Amino acid sequence: MSAYGCYVKFTTKPGQRDTFVTYLLNAASAMEKVPGCQLYIVNTSPTEPECVWVTEVWNSQEEHDASLTIEGAQETIQLAIPLLAGAPEKIDIQPVGGKGLIQA
Amino acid sequence: MSAYGCYVKFTTKPGQRDTFVTYLLNAASAMEKVPGCQLYIVNTSPTEPECVWVTEVWNSQEEHDASLTIEGAQETIQLAIPLLAGAPEKIDIQPVGGKGLIQA
Repeated sequence: MSAYGCYVKFTTKPGQRDTFVTYLLNAASAMEKVPGCQLYIVNTSPTEPECVWVTEVWNSQEEHDASLTIEGAQETIQLAIPLLAGAPEKIDIQPVGGKGLIQA
Repeated sequence: MSAYGCYVKFTTKPGQRDTFVTYLLNAASAMEKVPGCQLYIVNTSPTEPECVWVTEVWNSQEEHDASLTIEGAQETIQLAIPLLAGAPEKIDIQPVGGKGLIQA
């Protein structure tokens, strides 16, 4: 089973970034109870005021995909989507090693 | 002091990715002894065979910048640069919170 990661870029409608960040931080706290999730870090951008990046690392892609069905996930997604100016952009990555990666 | 993060994309010359990954994993192990470094994860790409992404999170940008002067860092950089096809691309991010982020 190889680790799965992604960087997801969200662009919100003007003035909606902070509310969107709050929703993602709620999602992140839900991940605390999800063993397959190693990282779910919410970030803003120093150069793009409406941009939010999420850094994710999972023990496997299967566990990432399953997380979209856990309790509360769909509700959070439904709340958050109207705040977006467009579709998220995702960069898929394959974590190999380094500081902070737990070799599952 | 606010956390600092970045995603750095390296593109190697054909056939040099794995050697480059080895150099970055050596750099990552050096970060184990650097308290200000929370994350230094080396990743490959499922879609770009010559691409290497590094996920970094630091307690501050100052500590990130200082890391470029620690023992062995410059030697690793000098070994690695010739393997690159071009300059790295860096996406600066500001970690806000979430699973895996240590609030310094």
